[in-house]
Amino acid sequence: MSDVSIGIDVGGTKALALIVARDGRVLGEVKSKTPHDARHAAGEATAAVLTDQIEQLAKMHGLKVASVPVGIGLPGLMRRDGHLAFAPNLQSASGADLGALLGVALGSSKVFCENDANCAALAEHEWGAGRGIEDFVMVTLGTGIGGGVIADGQLVRGRSGFAGEIGHMVVQAHGAPCLCGGHGCWERYASGGGLGRLTREAALEGRLATLVSRRGNPEDVTAEDVTAAAAEGLEEALTLVREVGWWLALGLSNLAAILDCGHFVIGGGLSSASDLVLPFAREYLVDLVEGYDARPTITVTTSMFGPRSGAMGAALVAFERNS
Amino acid sequence: MSDVSIGIDVGGTKALALIVARDGRVLGEVKSKTPHDARHAAGEATAAVLTDQIEQLAKMHGLKVASVPVGIGLPGLMRRDGHLAFAPNLQSASGADLGALLGVALGSSKVFCENDANCAALAEHEWGAGRGIEDFVMVTLGTGIGGGVIADGQLVRGRSGFAGEIGHMVVQAHGAPCLCGGHGCWERYASGGGLGRLTREAALEGRLATLVSRRGNPEDVTAEDVTAAAAEGLEEALTLVREVGWWLALGLSNLAAILDCGHFVIGGGLSSASDLVLPFAREYLVDLVEGYDARPTITVTTSMFGPRSGAMGAALVAFERNS
Repeated sequence: MSDVSIGIDVGGTKALALIVARDGRVLGEVKSKTPHDARHAAGEATAAVLTDQIEQLAKMHGLKVASVPVGIGLPGLMRRDGHLAFAPNLQSASGADLGALLGVALGSSKVFCENDANCAALAEHEWGAGRGIEDFVMVTLGTGIGGGVIADGQLVRGRSGFAGEIGHMVVQAHGAPCLCGGHGCWERYASGGGLGRLTREAALEGRLATLVSRRGNPEDVTAEDVTAAAAEGLEEALTLVREVGWWLALGLSNLAAILDCGHFVIGGGLSSASDLVLPFAREYLVDLVEGYDARPTITVTTSMFGPRSGAMGAALVAFERNS
Repeated sequence: MSDVSIGIDVGGTKALALIVARDGRVLGEVKSKTPHDARHAAGEATAAVLTDQIEQLAKMHGLKVASVPVGIGLPGLMRRDGHLAFAPNLQSASGADLGALLGVALGSSKVFCENDANCAALAEHEWGAGRGIEDFVMVTLGTGIGGGVIADGQLVRGRSGFAGEIGHMVVQAHGAPCLCGGHGCWERYASGGGLGRLTREAALEGRLATLVSRRGNPEDVTAEDVTAAAAEGLEEALTLVREVGWWLALGLSNLAAILDCGHFVIGGGLSSASDLVLPFAREYLVDLVEGYDARPTITVTTSMFGPRSGAMGAALVAFERNS
């Protein structure tokens, strides 16, 4: 068994690599831009960047690359065999077997891949905001919504390893179009991208008059304008944030109905807006969850490790599968 | 270990009691009307009917009542401790501890309660249409929609035992009102009750002209009229059945995204209409499931035991918890 492992969270814009001790302490970090170079074979450009990160971290700690277990968290449908089957936000690597590419590049048999939000769920369950909780869902709010489901203490992986694609649960039949090809997916309403979409819609419909007058043009009002103005108490911005809180609660209620999870851990890039959104979401849950009064309290907290959850979980996957 | 057990499925209208061998063979059956007598303490009238059924079955097979393990499948939120916490379709027993009531009445310590759709999932997994399949969802279409989730070969029960309330997943925000107090629940669109609602709506909007002219009044057209006419090939009825198939597929797609289940077993009282609805549902799944082409085929079949799944599963619960 290795004392340390490397975990990398590959997002649509950047890749965060951490070297982590068995007890969850982070010993070192390397950040890189995610390449979207699709000229070469699928995943090659990504594999080159990750190889470089791994070599840097190993060198810093005086370790041989092939001796350190490595976990990779990837966005999209991650097959149990390490194949990235479908990745709308990382199309240059879609279809690639990154585990195999990295194994060859590093001369290592210790590279393990998992879905990024599943990694985050595992990290929060082992060391963070889901510690000791047997039934919870990790919800990562970014451009989209990712998820990792812990049921009876175990990660639900599903038949092919694709479980937890909660952002593509349809909550509004025939609703807003989604990158996945569907309509009305939850992530079109409750993610960072959803807030952006709702912001444009509200600005064009005249529901953000103050912000539009500040920017001069409805098209120029951003989600960041809304969260900043809401934090200052601007009513029209708070109304929109409240709306996002309602949509967030709607999806959480669906998950509570299906899974009877008593706890949600909210992470991802929208976490910064979470302080504003979560109080509204908690308030709406009471109305939206079926039989709310018959259930023990359902809690919603922010992730303990914020943007590091995914990489920490990838490191945990490396520890577990290497043992 | 007992060679036989008794399983009872308590529905909103009738209670089906079966005596079952360890290999799933049904050795005897008693059907009764479910009482809705709310004058006495919660669950007392129900407990009296079930006690009578159990005594009949035990007597038929020359067994002492206290020696036979008994499983009860109940509709609604069933707590792990046997308490029926919330049961909109069995309000006279809502809040009751039926396991304790029956234990006293029978002088038995072998009474075990579980949610009815969870029971159905367990029976289909052990003996039926889910045999050998590690990730599937049992979907019972009746007045509402019940569900039982099998993930990695295990029933997902959730924190309190309430998992599988899939009918109350909202698929249409701000949609049709539901008995649970919510709006837009899946069961308002894809169950027997959903078909009835869509039928009334279509009849009043003039989309069922032939059926309305047969009945003389839009209000009098029933869901049964629609399924009968659809079976005969009447286009307006087929259009409505196709619509229900779409809604069914929508909810199944959500479950596939969240759980990555590769298989669905459809049971419950609407099973009779399943032959009409399922081909449409299978067709729509291809469009509705995120990344459909990246996944192995998703299959949808009818339950092997039809209306008996719930009671058989209750008997299975009795075997397992008594061992």
